Formats: sequence, C-alpha cells, structure tokens
Amino acid sequence: MTSTDDEGPLVPQPPDDLGLLTPVAAGTPVAAATGDAAVLTAMLQAEAALTQALADLGLAPGTAADAVTAAARELDVRTIPARAGSCGNPVLPLVADLTAAVAARVPDAAASVHQGATSQDILDTALMLVAVRALDLTLTDLDRTAGALARLAAVHRDTVMPGRTLTQHAVPITFGLKAAGWYRLVREAQRRLATTRDALPAQLGGAAGTLAAFHARAEATGAAPDPGLGLRLITAYALRTGLAEPVLPWHTLRTPIADLAASLAFTAGALGKIAADVLTLSRTEIGELTEADGGASSAMPHKSNPVRAVLITAAARQLPALAAVLFGALTAEDERPAGAWHSEWQPLREALRLAGAAARHAADLTENLRVHPHRMRENLDRTGGLIAAERLAVALTPLIGRSAARSALSRAARVTAAVGCSLEEALRTDLSTTELPDLQELADPAGYLGCSQALTDRALGERP
Amino acid sequence: MTSTDDEGPLVPQPPDDLGLLTPVAAGTPVAAATGDAAVLTAMLQAEAALTQALADLGLAPGTAADAVTAAARELDVRTIPARAGSCGNPVLPLVADLTAAVAARVPDAAASVHQGATSQDILDTALMLVAVRALDLTLTDLDRTAGALARLAAVHRDTVMPGRTLTQHAVPITFGLKAAGWYRLVREAQRRLATTRDALPAQLGGAAGTLAAFHARAEATGAAPDPGLGLRLITAYALRTGLAEPVLPWHTLRTPIADLAASLAFTAGALGKIAADVLTLSRTEIGELTEADGGASSAMPHKSNPVRAVLITAAARQLPALAAVLFGALTAEDERPAGAWHSEWQPLREALRLAGAAARHAADLTENLRVHPHRMRENLDRTGGLIAAERLAVALTPLIGRSAARSALSRAARVTAAVGCSLEEALRTDLSTTELPDLQELADPAGYLGCSQALTDRALGERP
Amino acid sequence: MTSTDDEGPLVPQPPDDLGLLTPVAAGTPVAAATGDAAVLTAMLQAEAALTQALADLGLAPGTAADAVTAAARELDVRTIPARAGSCGNPVLPLVADLTAAVAARVPDAAASVHQGATSQDILDTALMLVAVRALDLTLTDLDRTAGALARLAAVHRDTVMPGRTLTQHAVPITFGLKAAGWYRLVREAQRRLATTRDALPAQLGGAAGTLAAFHARAEATGAAPDPGLGLRLITAYALRTGLAEPVLPWHTLRTPIADLAASLAFTAGALGKIAADVLTLSRTEIGELTEADGGASSAMPHKSNPVRAVLITAAARQLPALAAVLFGALTAEDERPAGAWHSEWQPLREALRLAGAAARHAADLTENLRVHPHRMRENLDRTGGLIAAERLAVALTPLIGRSAARSALSRAARVTAAVGCSLEEALRTDLSTTELPDLQELADPAGYLGCSQALTDRALGERP
Amino acid sequence: MTSTDDEGPLVPQPPDDLGLLTPVAAGTPVAAATGDAAVLTAMLQAEAALTQALADLGLAPGTAADAVTAAARELDVRTIPARAGSCGNPVLPLVADLTAAVAARVPDAAASVHQGATSQDILDTALMLVAVRALDLTLTDLDRTAGALARLAAVHRDTVMPGRTLTQHAVPITFGLKAAGWYRLVREAQRRLATTRDALPAQLGGAAGTLAAFHARAEATGAAPDPGLGLRLITAYALRTGLAEPVLPWHTLRTPIADLAASLAFTAGALGKIAADVLTLSRTEIGELTEADGGASSAMPHKSNPVRAVLITAAARQLPALAAVLFGALTAEDERPAGAWHSEWQPLREALRLAGAAARHAADLTENLRVHPHRMRENLDRTGGLIAAERLAVALTPLIGRSAARSALSRAARVTAAVGCSLEEALRTDLSTTELPDLQELADPAGYLGCSQALTDRALGERP
Repeated sequence: MTSTDDEGPLVPQPPDDLGLLTPVAAGTPVAAATGDAAVLTAMLQAEAALTQALADLGLAPGTAADAVTAAARELDVRTIPARAGSCGNPVLPLVADLTAAVAARVPDAAASVHQGATSQDILDTALMLVAVRALDLTLTDLDRTAGALARLAAVHRDTVMPGRTLTQHAVPITFGLKAAGWYRLVREAQRRLATTRDALPAQLGGAAGTLAAFHARAEATGAAPDPGLGLRLITAYALRTGLAEPVLPWHTLRTPIADLAASLAFTAGALGKIAADVLTLSRTEIGELTEADGGASSAMPHKSNPVRAVLITAAARQLPALAAVLFGALTAEDERPAGAWHSEWQPLREALRLAGAAARHAADLTENLRVHPHRMRENLDRTGGLIAAERLAVALTPLIGRSAARSALSRAARVTAAVGCSLEEALRTDLSTTELPDLQELADPAGYLGCSQALTDRALGERP
Repeated sequence: MTSTDDEGPLVPQPPDDLGLLTPVAAGTPVAAATGDAAVLTAMLQAEAALTQALADLGLAPGTAADAVTAAARELDVRTIPARAGSCGNPVLPLVADLTAAVAARVPDAAASVHQGATSQDILDTALMLVAVRALDLTLTDLDRTAGALARLAAVHRDTVMPGRTLTQHAVPITFGLKAAGWYRLVREAQRRLATTRDALPAQLGGAAGTLAAFHARAEATGAAPDPGLGLRLITAYALRTGLAEPVLPWHTLRTPIADLAASLAFTAGALGKIAADVLTLSRTEIGELTEADGGASSAMPHKSNPVRAVLITAAARQLPALAAVLFGALTAEDERPAGAWHSEWQPLREALRLAGAAARHAADLTENLRVHPHRMRENLDRTGGLIAAERLAVALTPLIGRSAARSALSRAARVTAAVGCSLEEALRTDLSTTELPDLQELADPAGYLGCSQALTDRALGERP
Repeated sequence: MTSTDDEGPLVPQPPDDLGLLTPVAAGTPVAAATGDAAVLTAMLQAEAALTQALADLGLAPGTAADAVTAAARELDVRTIPARAGSCGNPVLPLVADLTAAVAARVPDAAASVHQGATSQDILDTALMLVAVRALDLTLTDLDRTAGALARLAAVHRDTVMPGRTLTQHAVPITFGLKAAGWYRLVREAQRRLATTRDALPAQLGGAAGTLAAFHARAEATGAAPDPGLGLRLITAYALRTGLAEPVLPWHTLRTPIADLAASLAFTAGALGKIAADVLTLSRTEIGELTEADGGASSAMPHKSNPVRAVLITAAARQLPALAAVLFGALTAEDERPAGAWHSEWQPLREALRLAGAAARHAADLTENLRVHPHRMRENLDRTGGLIAAERLAVALTPLIGRSAARSALSRAARVTAAVGCSLEEALRTDLSTTELPDLQELADPAGYLGCSQALTDRALGERP
Repeated sequence: MTSTDDEGPLVPQPPDDLGLLTPVAAGTPVAAATGDAAVLTAMLQAEAALTQALADLGLAPGTAADAVTAAARELDVRTIPARAGSCGNPVLPLVADLTAAVAARVPDAAASVHQGATSQDILDTALMLVAVRALDLTLTDLDRTAGALARLAAVHRDTVMPGRTLTQHAVPITFGLKAAGWYRLVREAQRRLATTRDALPAQLGGAAGTLAAFHARAEATGAAPDPGLGLRLITAYALRTGLAEPVLPWHTLRTPIADLAASLAFTAGALGKIAADVLTLSRTEIGELTEADGGASSAMPHKSNPVRAVLITAAARQLPALAAVLFGALTAEDERPAGAWHSEWQPLREALRLAGAAARHAADLTENLRVHPHRMRENLDRTGGLIAAERLAVALTPLIGRSAARSALSRAARVTAAVGCSLEEALRTDLSTTELPDLQELADPAGYLGCSQALTDRALGERP
C-alpha cells in the first residue's frame, strides 16, 4: 500500500485492510487513500498543522513546529490501532508517541504537541484530509466516465434500440439518449461531490468548542486577553491544513459529514443506475452491451461475466445504508457526543472507498463498453412491430376513432403473438375495409424516435 | 383536511390519513399538504397543465384545455386509491374518470386528456408540486426557528453553562454559543432545502422519455416533422406547472428525489440535534431548559414532558432510513423501472411530512424555550471547580511543569470527590510549598470561556 | 374501511389513509387491519381488557368493566388523531373521551378507566393486537403462496430452463427446482412470522414498569400489601387480551418489536426474491413467465406489465429500512424513552402493511403464474450449446487433459459466437484428430440436470 | 493477528485491517476471528473439506484429499485480496494458487481441487465458518454479561432509584429491576444468536445449484447415473465442515444471512439499550453509575469518560443499517445474482465484528460497573417528594375525589418547585382542613415500588 502524500510517506506504512471482502475496491488508489495508513498520516499532518498554526500566531516557537513536523514524518504508528480500544479513540496513543518522539529531538518542543486541542480536532481534520484526497481521485474517475459517456452518446446518437418499461418493450429509443442520461447523472454527481469537497473544513475547538485552552495558554505567557485569538487560530490552522475555514467548531454540528453522505450516496446511486442498465442489456438473451473484459468463471470456461457492473452494483447497494448511519449521527448531543461521533468513522471511510472504487470501475467500464447495434435491431424486431403500437394507435385514431384504434391494435397484438405474423399484417387483415396509411413505414422503429436526438444534443451541450 | 391550492379546492377532499401514529405531524399544515387529497389535486393540476401546454403549442384546442381544467376542478376522486392497486399506479383510474368527465362537457376535448403522456409524467409532476408546497411550509418554519435561535443566542451571549463531552462536564461554554450552533444548523438546512426546492422539475417524457407520441400526434395533424417539438413542449409544460424545466425526462434519472432525500434528512438531523440537547438539558437533575408547554402525563399529574423535543426526535430517527430507500431507488433500470419508482412514493411523502412537522415543532419549541441560568450556574458548581481543571493545568505548568501539574490536579480531583472540598482547597493543600496564582479566580467558569462570545457573534453575523 | 373485529365494529370508522401512494396495499384486508380505525379499535379493546382484568382480581367492580366495554364499543374516535399532537400520543385524548362516556353511563365506573396504567401500556398492547391480526392475514396468504409454489414445482419437476448467474446463461436447471427454492423461502417466512406472532405480549407496567399504582390502589381499599399482585394482574390482562404474557413490562425492552422487524423484513425479502425472478423471466426477450393478468399501460395498448411483481418489489425495497428504524429503537433509554418509542409506530404499521400486502400479491401471482416451457427451450438453444460447456469440459478432460479441454472450449465458444454454428460442430472441427464421445448427447441440456429433481423432491418433502 | 484455528494456523497471516476506525473492536478476539486472514483460512478449509467429501464418496482419491489439506495449510495467501478485484471475487485467485501448490506436491491431485464447485460454494461456506467462530466468541461474552447482570440485579434487588420517563422523574424503581431487564435482553440475544448459529449451513451447489458437474464427473469415470449423488455429497461436505446441512443450495435463498442480520442487530440493540442507560446514569449531574475504568481525556486530566458505553453505542448505531443491507440482499435474482451477493460480504463481516466487540465490552462493563446508591437516593430527593405524586393522588382520591386530588397535587407541585419546601408540606398547607393520612410515609419512595422485587425475582428465575 502506497502513501497518498505527494512528498513521500510521513510514516512507515502499517499493514491494513487488504480488501478481501471489498473486491470492488481491492487494489484501487482510493482504497489506499482511505486505509489505516492514510488516516494515520493525515492525523500526523493535523498535529503538525496545529503546531505550525500556533507558531504562526506566536503561541509556540518555530523550532517546536519544525520538531513536530519532523517527528511526525518518522513516527512508527503500527501499534496505534490496537491501543485505541481502551481509550476510545486513536488520537490519545498517537499523541503520546508523538510527544515522546518530539521530546527526544527537542525537549522544549514537547509542550507544544497537541496543546489545547481535543482528540476530535485531530481526527475530524484527518478524516477531512482523507476525504479530500479520496474525492479528488473520485472526481477524476467521474470525469473520465463522463467523457466516455459523452463519446458513446455522440457516436450512438442515431442507434435505435428498444425502450423498456416495467421490463417490457415500450417504444424505440436511441442508445445515444440512454448514454446521454447516464452522462447527466455523472455530471450531477461530479457537481455535488465537488461542492461538498470544497467546503470540507478543518476542525479546531478544544475540549468543548470554545478554544479556551489556547486562550489560557496565551494568557499564561502574560499576553493580554484577546477575544479574537481563537478565531485567528482557526484561520491559521485551516490555512496550514489546506481545508476550508469553519464558521464554528463543528464537533456536534455535522454538516460536512451529512454533505459527504449525501453526495457519496448520490454518486454510488448514479453509477448504480448505469450498472443496472449494463447488467440488463448484457443478459444472454438481450446482448446489446458487453463489458470489454468480463470476468472469468471458476466453473464455466466460456462465460464472460459483467464483473465491473456487478461490483458497482454491490457498492451501490451499500451506500444508502452507510449514508443513513451518517445522517443519523447528526443527532449528536452535548458539545461532544457519546457514540454518534464514533459511529461515523468506519461508515465514512467505507462510503468514500466504495463510491470512489465504483467511479474507477465506471470509468473502465464505460471507456471500454462494447455496443452491439445489430442485437438492438434484432430485439426491436422480436415483437413483430408491437414496439410501434403507440404510433400506430395515434395514426389510426383520425381514421377510425381512438377507441376503435386501441381495440384493433389489441386484437392485432394477440394475433401477432399467436401466429407469428407482423403487426402490420395482422392489422391490415383486421381493418381490411379501411383505407390505411403506409403501416410498414409507421412501424419502422427508426421513424418513431420523438426528440431523442434533440434531447441527446441538449444533454451533451448543457454546462455540467 | 383543507386544500393547499390558493384558488380553492380543485376536488372534493377524500378522507385520508389522519396521522394517529404520526403525532408529530397530526394536525400540521404539512400533513394536509402531503395527504392523499393534496396529491390527487396535484395530479389533476398536472393533467390540466399538460393540456394547456399542448394548447400553447397548437397541439390541442384551447377549448380542450379549458374543459380539462374545469373538469379537474370538480372531479370526485374518492375511489381512486382503491382502484390503483390492480394497475399498479393511481394515474390510470384518474385518467379514466377525468376523460369521462371531460367528454361529458366537451366531447371533442376528451381526446386531449393525458394524450402522449405516461403515468409517471403525471405522478412525478404531482409529487414535485406537493414537495414544493411542503418545502415552502417547512422553510417558513425553519425561518421562524432560526429567528428564535438568533434571539436566544444574543440574549444568552454571556450566560455560562457547563460544556459536556461524552456525558461529563468538560469546560464552561455559553448558552449563546450553543444556540448559535443550533442557528447555523437551521440556516444550513434552509439553504439546502431551498436549493433543492428551486430545482424541482416538471416531468414529461411519454412512454420511454422520447416524447414520441407528441411528435406523432403533431404529424398526424399533417404538420411537418419538427425535431424540437418535444423540447418546446417540455418548456411550455414546465411553465404551466411552475416547476423547473428539466434537461431530460428523468423517469430513471432521479436526481431530484435524491436531493430531496438528502436535504430532508439533513433538516431532520439538524433539528434532531437541537432536540437531543433540549432533552438532555431538560432532565430532572439538569433542569437548564424547559419546554414552555410540556405534555401532560396520563399517570402523573405533576409531570411536564418535553413533548416537542420527543416528537422531533422521533421524526429524526426515521428520516435516515426513508432517505436510504430514496437513495436506493436511484438504481432504476431501463426507461422506467419495475419497482424502484414505486418504492419512492410513500417514503418521499413521509419524509416531507416528518421533516416539515419537525420544523413546525422546532419553531414552537425554540420560540417558547425557557432558559434557567441559575440551574446552569448550580450545575457548574457541582464538581467543586473541576470544570476549570484544564485552565488550572495550563496555569500551573509554567510553575511546576506539565507532568507535575497534571498529577497534582488528578490527586486534587480525587480529594475533591472524596471530601467534598473545592478543587482550589485541595490543590492549595497539595501544593502547599509552591507560590500559587489566584486559584479562585482561575477556577471561575465565567473567566474561562475562550472565544465563545466571538464565535457567537460570528455565527450570527455570517450570511446564512 | 371495515372493522377487523369478529363481533362487529367497536367504533364508528374514522376516515383514514386510503393508500394512494401505497398501491401494493390499496384495498387489501391487511391495509384495513392496520389502519387508524383498526388501531383505535384495538386501543379501546386494551382499555376494556384492563378494566376486565382489574375486575377479575377484585380491583374494580364488575359493573365498571361492563360499562367500559360498552362505552368502548360506541365511542366516536374521529377527533383523536388530531388531538394527539399536542400531548405526544393518542392515548390521552382517547382516555379523556372514554372516561366521559363511561361517566355518562355509570358515574362510579369512571374511576376505573385506565386506572394505574400508562399510555404506553395501552398503545403497545393495541399495536400487538393489530400485529396479530395483520400476521394472521399474512400467514394465510403465505400458505396460499406456498401451496401454489409446491404445485408449480411438482408440475415442472422436469421442465428444463437456463440457469443464469451474474446475468449470463450458466448450466441448465429445472423450473421445478427454482419453484422449490421459492417454496422453501415462503415456508421459512411462515415459520419465522408464526413464531414471532405467538410470542407477541400484552403490555402492562404503569408509569415506570413497577405496576405501583395498581398496588397503591389495592392498598387504598385497605387490602394488605401483596407483592405478587402486579404479576397476577399482568396474567389476567394478558388472558383478557389474548396476547402472550410477558416476563417483564417491556416499555424499553423491545424484543417483540425487533422480532417483528426481523420476520417482516425476511418475509418481504423472500417474496422480493420471487418477484425479482418473475420480473427477469418476464422480460420481452426472455418470456419464460407471464403474470396472468398483467397491468395495462396508459400509453401502449398492447403492453401487459408484471404488475404484481413490481408491487412486491416496491414493498421489498422499503422493508429493510423500516426494519432498521425498529432495530434502532431498541436503544431506548430510561424506563420510557424520549423518542425511540414514538419512532416505532408508523414504521411498524407500514412494515406490517407492506409485508402483508406483498404476501397477498404473491399468492395471487403464484396461483396464476403462466409458465412457458417452449420459451425456456428456445432460450436454452440460443447459445448454440454453450450452456453445456461445463459438461463438455468434464467429458473431454479424461481424453485430452483439463487444460486442453478448457482451451478447446474457449476457442469453440468464440467460433460459435462468430459463425453461428453449434458448439458441437465447432468442437468437432477444433478437435478433429481426437476420438470424441457423442457430443450432441452431451450437449443436451435435459441430460445435464445434476440432482435438480432430487433436490426438488426433498424441498417439497421436508416439513416446513 | 492470531489464527482462530485450534490446531494452529493453516496459512501465514497476511496483514489486514487493524481497526483504526473501529476502536470498539480493535484488539478483540472477534476482530481477529473475522479478519482477512481468518476468512482466507476458512476458504482453504472449505476447499479441503470439499476434496475430503469427494474422497468420502469415492469421487476423488484419498491422496488428493490429503494433498489439498496439506497444501492449504501452507499456502501463502497474501496477494489474494489484490487479485480479487479484476475477477470479482477472491476465490478464483485462491483456487489458482492452491491448484499450483497441490500440483507441486501430487501432480495427479490437482484435478481434484475445487472440482465441480463454484466460487460461491467456497466463499459462502467460509463466511459461515467465520460466523460460527465469531458467534461462539460473542455467546461467551454475552454469557459473562448475563452473569454479571444477574449478580447486579440480585445485589440491588432493593436499591431504590428514580424511574425516569421522557427524561423526567416518574415514580421510584429499583436498580435490581433495571438490571433484571437488561439481563432478559441479553438472554434473549443469546437465544436468538444460538438458534441462528446452529442452523448455519454449508454451501454446495456448483454453477447453478444443481451439482451437475459432480454428477458429470462421476459419470465420466464410468459410474451409472445416480440421481441422489449430489445430495449425498452435500451431506458429506457439511459433515466435513462441521456446518449444518442445507435442504437446498442457497446461492439465492439467503435465509442464513437474514437470520444473522436479525440476531446480530438485535444483540447490538440490546447492548445498546444497556449502554444508553449507563450513559444517562453516568452523567455528571446524575452520577448513579460509573464505569470502573473510564477513558482518559486528552485535554482534561480529571475526566473519566464512560468509554465502554460509548463504544457499544457506536456499534449499536451501525448495526441496523448493516442489517438493512443484508435484508436487502434477499432479493437476489437468478441462480446467482449480479451484485446482491457481493454486497453481503463486508456488511456481514462488520456486523459480526461490531456485535461481537460490543458483547466483549458489555461483559467488561457490567462485571466492573460501580453502582452508587447514595446518589440514587439524593436524586430521589431532588424533587421534594414529587416522585411519589402518583401514590399521593391514589391515596387522596378516596378522601377528596380524583379530580380534587389531582388539582391539589398540581398546586402543591408548583409550590414545591417555587418555594423549595417538600411536597408533603405544600399539600398539608393546601389541604389544611382535611384529615390527611401519614403523608411522609406515603412520600417515601422505598414504599412505592409496586412489584419491582417480584418482577426481578421472576426475571432471574425464568429459564433463559
């Protein structure tokens, strides 16, 4: 597992979840970016940013900030997770080890480690850093996906296929329109994720969100009371972390978590819609789409499974429940809650990981999707022209009335199904005394596309 | 149950859910605005808007539009729900009755009823109309709530109370800061709901989202093929409904539903946070807050229950799960899905109703909340000064070192708990050989508020 | 809406939810059995049972019990729901009206109404009565479903069809085996529901679960203290309600609710599995199953939708979330909780209603399901014999080795797909130098059914 | 991370999830028993059991079974998770490696590895083996918990404390009764888990649940067709795994998963109820309970947090959503589904882990819980006797009537709250003209316990 930090690993990588039971994510960059190692790295970055911010405001010596930053880069964090259980969160053992490591370098600097902060300041900030990195990976993959879909929609702007409703053929559509719809969903997911990402804030409030310990620390050095000190510290800390500046400490005001829940659940659902369509259209009997590199079967050498669509679907089935846990954690009592906060960590990581991995698979899937227009055409023909029944009904109505038109079509549909003749033939027989329009032309699916192409053009042309 | 339509009822009101098991909503305007009667009314409005839009484009006679609008206002819809089961949705029986009613007025106009549309066009549009009305009520109540909270925050800007973390006293805060946090949450809920509301689109796509039947209808009248007809019809229809215009028909592109799920779940969670705090602070032993008009008990004449907070909590416990169903419905296969769409209706209505009712109760609760500063003060004193321990630790560190300071405080805390003396006394005895600062002043909670007030000012001052 | 009480309505029926947005349940007996009217009736039955039990133990005069029972039968409850909001539950206004009605008949009896009980005693008991009635309806429909499935499995014991995995043809199965699997699920749902149903307890604990007010009432009449009185009263009350006797009052020990959540979610999921298969096998391109009376389309006269499967699916998509709310309500603090209990009511009713309605539709669906063996046969032939690839691989392995066999089959599969010849032909060409077994026989799907039939027999033969 | 296998590790332990974000589970035996290493070990055990069962029926040589078992014990599985992504599940790479390892030992035996099985046979069986081990650990910890609670209930059978409803003091209860309620929940969780555990079945069905490849393999050796072969193989395989024998292959009949979901969600909820009460009663102002070894705070040296209750609460908040995913996976289409199955793995593992870890913490919590009867007594006295108001109302009713009694108590309650006198004094003044009973005795909470003790005795005496 590799570090997600641009400048090289801050910490030796501890072993972590290898994703045996999350194959959708196994081996993906977003899995690494959300693993235990990445979170520990981010926690150390938060501690370093705090000392830097203190130094920025003259509340800690610059040497202390340097010492903390240097010690954080080399800390061995492998034992942290196991030591987190007894105290309820992983920050306490990390601070203990970091303090010792700083003290070994610059004894005076130890007093500046984590000073004035609470565990939640560090872990919330770390999870936001992790979220930003995971979302950046996800946004890149969504952009690839949207690009692939725009190309598919353009290429297949006029490719006719059956429109299906409640599992049954309804009227013709184009594959371009379908791909354009997928494209819109992906763009909408991008926009929601990007908005959420840009607002993810640093967390700094101290024990109960008042930053009082920072004030006390300043006053202990003899400084005059300064009611704005805490606010300026939040600003400096946010700058050092690269995260947004919060209006208030948000220990129990969990808007950023809820926004992540919402945009990640939407993303997974949007990709899940695409996957659901791919699965349906890949069915042996339908065969209109194929994943370029389907998965092998352990039992059947000929089989090629739509593996990416399956994995995306598996992710999409999990996200709503993970989002529900995160929404539920909004009801966080007091200044820091007894359980609600702790319940967020793993579901948030899992949501970032699953949505991000689904985006990666969606990019690979859509960039390599094989489209089979001849199978679409064959499927259109399967119902002997019934897919044009709606059009025929409209065309016959001026001639014989709406009710008679519907009855004739229902009779003809039954004959078609029973005898195997085309709907035109059956209709012509049924209505032999009537002067009929060119039924064959009317029954041509390619002539009954409504504004499919205009909609496709509009969907691709709109700003995302 | 009263109509939600400004111009008077379109339809006689059928009996509907009276809310026996949803007391949070019973009797609220949002319950009426989301009831069966309101949905049926909105369905008829959608049908009327469709005929009007057809007339706007010359696809139906103006007399037909008038006839449909008039018939819709008088239709008896009481039997619709029971007839919806066998065909799977309530639009079919409604169209049948509406067509008959129109035919009875203007025989020629019957052919213009629901022409070219699919059931989902009507029901989706109707549910968006209902959502807009429910959100408008909700936004009004959130505005009342935010106003009340801003007043509370201002009035109690300097009211000191215990900050509590993991159920234990931590350091002092102000009630103003707590109320300011609640205020931010409510403003953030408002913004999310308003954004969602303004984007709620009309739905029009016909059988499979191509609007082909409308094109066929136009061509059956001899008009030249016009690839842009469908798009212009969507525009006209959206205008007639007052809803936003969608880029594409969204039969299986369910972004608006997901946005509703997200913003409603956030709203209920934000109000749930407030309620959780009110419940805690209303506990008999804590007594810092009281609901103005608590509920009576059937068994105990003296009891006054925090009923509004209880009802808000009950709503907040349900919303995440309802949102999960709605997010799950994003994976809607084909051009119209076999179950995903149908699974949205009741959870969406319930989510609108519960979040809206919670907002109403939150407004009543916060406008009438009774705050008890003397109980806050008593509670601050309960721990014999331990609530200032963090400050004392900071103050002692320069004198005796960080580690010795923590040890002394731990010892003093034990003595305080065992003997009942104050923390200052215990510390003074413990550190009798040390020259100490004014411990009593340091232990004053009112002197250890950090930037509580500055944060409060900022929270109230920021644009919502 | 009709009463669910065998002896005729206790109360005039108030208007209630007509199910516009729950078409799966609209018009079903289980909808009526769980409506507001049914719950109000059950609440009055609980009040009557309490007075009867008090009389059984000599704590109330027999005349009071008679008066309460008679008044309960005639009470007008239409205003109760709207009056429930301000006090947080519907029991208080009901008790007020019932007390007045009793007082009007037998003034002395009024003191015996609801005496010693708490609201939750009445509402919990009422919801258990409602649950019993809903489950009885559901169990009957599951029994019908199981019967229909057993018949289908027996009739189609040897009907061959494609087995499908990850959307692709795998190896042949029988429709009998598929129906036998559905049968098992339904029987397992029945067993879980019946176990849950038989354990549903009456609720009686008084204000905080100690039944102290009943003891006080007895002592106020001069009786000697009797520590067992409360237990005997619980016994008498349970007998009068017909529900099970609880070991303890369960105001915050919500095992019965969790058991309902689990067994209802299982039931809906089991039926959802059947519906998912029916939807897939009803697809236009697959056509192996048809619902006997599919739903009409508002736009396409020829279409026949698998409406019952759609409605069951819609229900199955909602149950897991409703169950999640109910499981979440297990964490109910104190002796009666501030929100958890209130959050159960509507989800429990909805879960009973949706699972019960799904069972009704499943019975109708399975009793009338049309099976098309010729379409199964056609589909088996679509892949040119690839469905027998696994068997051919096994047969070739002794001749040319496992690896060579798999390679030959993969090559042949590609040729089959490209050229359209059968897999046997392609293999024979590919392996022209090898002495081959009778490939045509080996490729016969009917000869590669494993123990499908034996499994079917066992599934039908096992005790449910 | 240590192996969960009694006879020593089958495989070198790969690095896996160290639980940084799941501190409730970090370092617990159930975390190890459900980790990637444990699942891989179980997968190899399933493969070994399959070859052994084949050998039992004469379908594989005994030497092959030995070779597979031996190779499985030594396989290096560290690369498996990362290789699972591209094929969609981890069984394929495992089989490839195992086959190679077997071939290196006994070339002929390679043909017997995984022969006739499908990936799901192995992974389902492995997850059931993992579940059995996790549940055994959980059941042991629940038994410890129940033992501790029974002791607490017995010791505190007569310890009086306030009963609390909707956050307010209601009437007195005993701590014994509260602990007895907790005890019942734990026993009910044990029973549900044990029932689920004993029915967890092995999985064996081959590609589509017909076991056809096993039949083909037997026939390829020249054996006569034997329709019962597959059933006998299931029996032999179940015996070799130690799991229950299924009636049918259950690839898409997911009853065991649903039963796990239900019993684990119940367990976590039951423990969550205990934790919710501990959190409330540990509040600084209430102080009736203390965790023996509370967690330290990073900011406040004096603080002792109820860490175990917090961690249990965090687990309980996640289980309902995980269960919802598992219930949702019941709707698994076809013979093996495209996503539903894959969505089960991680939520199932997480549910086992969280519920098991919660049980471990509950055992530690309850065995070391500190109860403070003097604080209970102090809290009872806080309302000046109002906690006995219900009793006083009953006692006064025969003297002055029910309505007058309630009014007098309401007045007295207001005086008590305003003036600070006791309720008796206020009542005596209010009703100065009435001959009153011994109000002080009536107001003694210890005299108003109803059948608290009898209920406690019954709860402890009932068979679990």
